[in-house]
Amino acid sequence: MSLDPRDALRLALAPNSIAVIGASDNPNKIGGRPLAYLSRFGFKGVVYPINPTRTEVQGMHCFPDLASLPEVPDVVVVAVAGEQAIAAVDECGLAGVAVCIVMSSGFGESDPQGKARELAMAARARSRGMRIVGPNSQGLANFGNGAVPSFSTMFTEVMPADGPVGIISQSGAMSVIPYGLLRARGVGVRHSHATGNDCDVTVCELAIVVAEDPGLKLLLLYLEGIPDPWHLAEAARVARVRNLPIVALKSGRSAAGQEAAQSHTGALANEDRTVDAFFAEHGIWRAQSMVDLVDTAQLYLQGWKPRGRRLVAISNSGAVCVLTADAASAADMPLEPLSDATQGELRAILPGFATTTNPVDITAALLSNSGLFGAILPPIAKDPAADAFLIGIAVAGAGYDVEAFASDAAAFATATGKPVVVAAPQLSVSDRFKKHGMAVYPTEGEAVQALGQYLSHHELQLEATHRQPAVPTRPRAVGPACMLDEAASLALLAGRDITAVRHRLCGSEAEARAAFTALGGTPVVVKGCTGEVSHKSELGLVRVALRDIDAVGQAYGDMTEAARAAGITLTGVIVARMVRGQRELMIGARLDPVFGPVVLVGDGGKYVEAMPDVQVLLAPFDTPQVEQALRRLRIAPLLDGVRGEPALDVEAFCRMAAAVGALMVDDAAGITQLDINPVIVGARGAGCVAVDAVVYQEITLPNPPPKES
Amino acid sequence: MSLDPRDALRLALAPNSIAVIGASDNPNKIGGRPLAYLSRFGFKGVVYPINPTRTEVQGMHCFPDLASLPEVPDVVVVAVAGEQAIAAVDECGLAGVAVCIVMSSGFGESDPQGKARELAMAARARSRGMRIVGPNSQGLANFGNGAVPSFSTMFTEVMPADGPVGIISQSGAMSVIPYGLLRARGVGVRHSHATGNDCDVTVCELAIVVAEDPGLKLLLLYLEGIPDPWHLAEAARVARVRNLPIVALKSGRSAAGQEAAQSHTGALANEDRTVDAFFAEHGIWRAQSMVDLVDTAQLYLQGWKPRGRRLVAISNSGAVCVLTADAASAADMPLEPLSDATQGELRAILPGFATTTNPVDITAALLSNSGLFGAILPPIAKDPAADAFLIGIAVAGAGYDVEAFASDAAAFATATGKPVVVAAPQLSVSDRFKKHGMAVYPTEGEAVQALGQYLSHHELQLEATHRQPAVPTRPRAVGPACMLDEAASLALLAGRDITAVRHRLCGSEAEARAAFTALGGTPVVVKGCTGEVSHKSELGLVRVALRDIDAVGQAYGDMTEAARAAGITLTGVIVARMVRGQRELMIGARLDPVFGPVVLVGDGGKYVEAMPDVQVLLAPFDTPQVEQALRRLRIAPLLDGVRGEPALDVEAFCRMAAAVGALMVDDAAGITQLDINPVIVGARGAGCVAVDAVVYQEITLPNPPPKES
Repeated sequence: MSLDPRDALRLALAPNSIAVIGASDNPNKIGGRPLAYLSRFGFKGVVYPINPTRTEVQGMHCFPDLASLPEVPDVVVVAVAGEQAIAAVDECGLAGVAVCIVMSSGFGESDPQGKARELAMAARARSRGMRIVGPNSQGLANFGNGAVPSFSTMFTEVMPADGPVGIISQSGAMSVIPYGLLRARGVGVRHSHATGNDCDVTVCELAIVVAEDPGLKLLLLYLEGIPDPWHLAEAARVARVRNLPIVALKSGRSAAGQEAAQSHTGALANEDRTVDAFFAEHGIWRAQSMVDLVDTAQLYLQGWKPRGRRLVAISNSGAVCVLTADAASAADMPLEPLSDATQGELRAILPGFATTTNPVDITAALLSNSGLFGAILPPIAKDPAADAFLIGIAVAGAGYDVEAFASDAAAFATATGKPVVVAAPQLSVSDRFKKHGMAVYPTEGEAVQALGQYLSHHELQLEATHRQPAVPTRPRAVGPACMLDEAASLALLAGRDITAVRHRLCGSEAEARAAFTALGGTPVVVKGCTGEVSHKSELGLVRVALRDIDAVGQAYGDMTEAARAAGITLTGVIVARMVRGQRELMIGARLDPVFGPVVLVGDGGKYVEAMPDVQVLLAPFDTPQVEQALRRLRIAPLLDGVRGEPALDVEAFCRMAAAVGALMVDDAAGITQLDINPVIVGARGAGCVAVDAVVYQEITLPNPPPKES
Repeated sequence: MSLDPRDALRLALAPNSIAVIGASDNPNKIGGRPLAYLSRFGFKGVVYPINPTRTEVQGMHCFPDLASLPEVPDVVVVAVAGEQAIAAVDECGLAGVAVCIVMSSGFGESDPQGKARELAMAARARSRGMRIVGPNSQGLANFGNGAVPSFSTMFTEVMPADGPVGIISQSGAMSVIPYGLLRARGVGVRHSHATGNDCDVTVCELAIVVAEDPGLKLLLLYLEGIPDPWHLAEAARVARVRNLPIVALKSGRSAAGQEAAQSHTGALANEDRTVDAFFAEHGIWRAQSMVDLVDTAQLYLQGWKPRGRRLVAISNSGAVCVLTADAASAADMPLEPLSDATQGELRAILPGFATTTNPVDITAALLSNSGLFGAILPPIAKDPAADAFLIGIAVAGAGYDVEAFASDAAAFATATGKPVVVAAPQLSVSDRFKKHGMAVYPTEGEAVQALGQYLSHHELQLEATHRQPAVPTRPRAVGPACMLDEAASLALLAGRDITAVRHRLCGSEAEARAAFTALGGTPVVVKGCTGEVSHKSELGLVRVALRDIDAVGQAYGDMTEAARAAGITLTGVIVARMVRGQRELMIGARLDPVFGPVVLVGDGGKYVEAMPDVQVLLAPFDTPQVEQALRRLRIAPLLDGVRGEPALDVEAFCRMAAAVGALMVDDAAGITQLDINPVIVGARGAGCVAVDAVVYQEITLPNPPPKES
């Protein structure tokens, strides 16, 4: 019987036997490369070329078909085209093959017909207990055991070396470009898998299994779409247990990029800031570019246990010191002065015009005395001001003892155990430091940026490990929804501990007048209540700061008139207390089709769309997470009060946001979207109230909305 | 007699004779390197080693002193230490030497005593008509004529090649690091000058002369401080005449960086956003890092005349297409679809699963048919959707005709004349494209970012050429200033066409009551008027929205009481009409000690410090420049009205800002600083008014402030 689906993936990475349907004698063809690679890279299992037109392929016995093989192979590579490919996959499924790697293209990436063929093929495979990688896959590559059923050109161009890095990508190119760039930097790569159209096995699911590899110290992902965040969260969980960092490059950040992704892998667009929040939640670092993805890699392989972000810089160039200070500032890495004792020791070693605070500028005096570098390292090593170091060797060569610099620096790094990055623009210099195992960058800017990212990711991993985020389930399918009017929206929220401003829904001018009195005769806001439009002020359906009963009566009449003019049906007119607070914030929420309930918190008021200042939270979350999010807003300085203003009641707002999160995860409530704007937040202790709200609720079959009479 | 000071600098770059005081036989010593370089790099003039202890140095006749030379050399390198250096410089000045290059350190970069020695040495040289480069200078290097009086180690490590790039730097390291990085990219460098402490000749002044070199296509600057923007503006003017782009890396962006710069070259801190504005004004591109400085260099050397920013991308990888679209979006480069006609032609060439819109994804079909690449270029070349191109060859090698790709791409670039960048992560591929003279980057992200910067700089240069910015003069020395109270500030501004809100300064409660009536009985603001504090609301000295005469009378009393409690003397109480407008903006201004009058425009109100949203203008400027600045603000969307609001009276605000600019450039007004916040801006046509203002005016000797009685 068929394997556990996850075990099948484990087998795909370490099969006992691999067959290639469409085997070619030409090692540069799609059907030829996998065979060439399996023998070249030392695969220990059995390989079965299959091609009915040949008896021998690349020196191996060739079989006419799957049925002729002496056994059912664990993995079958399908390298034939079109209908033949589909027939081959079906045959594999019937024969009991565990995993089919479909390299053939012309499926979902081509057109809707191709997509339909792909889905049907995947469904048949699933019913037969077979996993599919692809179609349109470049193949898998595990250099740890030579299982390289892949047709990538890269492995003939850049020689592999087994190492502690794994790469998984939907795109073939992006599975091997980081491989190539890392190999060029001397880093070994074990896994380089390209999953193609992900009709069954996705990048995220494969990542779960790859993350189990105890030989890995870094896992890199390239994604164009994330259709299954639950798999990625599971992979992150597996990785966290082993302190395996995951860095992901998720493209399609921009509208143009999403459009291009749609024609490339047919990836569905994910909302970019939700992706950001998801990665952060699960401790995954999001790289911004390919350079980003590979530039920090070497730092993860050093085995450091960073304790903080305070940087100490050492260079023979004052300008490198200045540029390092700028870069460190941009990367939020403070430069604290070395202790008086350390500075005293340094002054005894360095000439008078050198700088001993931090950065430490040895100056060009190093040209006259190469020993200065090695001499200052021991005092610096024991200084408490450093969590990490940058060593900048701006210029060296004839007249300098570069080998001593490199070996002294390496000894220093070992002695401190703290992160050390080297900036050296000259190849002759950087090569020496690399030979001593150090992390070297051409410029201080690149070195500091990479170090900053590495440290930030480390913090993110610690937070995630501490928080132990739940692995989300696949969100339920959401039915059609309708917009509730303001009064109904506020009432629904009030039932969930989301306090609304005091208000009354009035059906007549007399009721409106009575409401004004009942609310205490203080200034009120009068609003038309309707479930037909969400932006009311543009239509004359909002009047603020009404101070007397006649104005309220007048507003009632004006509003019914304005609604009639705009062709809108009012369910009544709301008379609400006008509340003063310290700041208008907002809370929004929606059900993302793949990420589930997403809550937005941010600055509120009229300009939330024109000048957005919001942060994303993935529900469920707790109040400290809301506060963390608020502290990332542009308006964060206002939370604690500025210019003599009191601090905001952040605690009350956080509770309200958490209540919204709880509402959104409650499937029974059937809320698909809501916007509470503004939430008027008072001074600390004064609480906050929802002043306007729009809620969209699912039209569920048990309780259909009342029919119009 | 002495040369024109500028001619002396020209001579420094192309001297007929160079002497080296402190000549060393060791070519790796500071006194030996210049001699070695002058002979190695083919200097055609006469070289005079000077050292009283030797008769021969590096195979050349050595002279005991300056007086023994057969002529007065044009340039003398001083490579002796301490007092000897000062004596040597003095001797050169007396002898009539044109330029002294002082390599010796221990001057201004060391301590205040060193600074004093340096200033005195420079003053004596100036009185004798001699220019000084340095002290603490690594020297000059002109590979166009072999005049390389420099001790940089880099020129023995990375072989020079004359080329179209000039580099000028205060720092020695930063004069040669870009040299090394550019040479490694195959770019020739002619000038690599390090000016050191800039006690006389500065980077900016030297740039004027270097910019005259007709062989240059790009001038790179490294600056830690800009003490003489007038020289830099002049250099930019000279460069603009010849379409010579200037790219500058100005470090000390951050507080930490400024502190490090202070101990490196003693650079005075420039306000960073003022530096940004100055560079933009004069068409100089500000690089953010060393990588930034060198990464775009090759693009400037291609001789392109860009017409726009619309990018067309072509790749054999869909993922490269997606990442390119993301990068282009971030770099503000739109991807417009190719025309139907072009797409039709491409569809006839490419397989059905390829993408023909833009980006054009050839797909892995290129592996089966290398001819596809060359075939699609001619139709794309004539498509009107492209201002520039990215060609991404994600993976190639065995099975691909890479040489054909490179030669076809080069022919395509020549045919279109439009900017073309190539992204190729494999060295074997990028080398081929480089051999064909193309601009190649490892990844699409780097390629697009460099292209975007190049295009932005091109636009900046065009604007500057169109605007012909004036070369500023050295700002006058500013005396001590005093703060005017609000009433005096508003009165002064009113005399300069800067309209204030209607208000009265009242000396008694009765006057305050009368003012309320005189202002029309509408809501008023009451403020304590004082020249002693600028932030009044924290002290209870501001009351808004007072609607009746008794409240105004009460406020008068409260305010005098609050002032007494705070120990502040009021010059009266202001009763002002409370004006409603569409938005509160602000205008600020100050006299920068080196950049002169600087005007800030931005979002106004209470939070200008907590959440700044401002842009810098260098006065004088015109109203279109103000509007451009406003369009860069975060609040820019509000200018045209959002959510049904009317557009702001941007024109009136621009006129007010221009009036402030005119006031600031009027030395006779003696304004050293002012803040108008808020400026209440009405709907278009409704104008704007200054509601609060603080002006600081110089205490000039002719009109001393009245003595306290």
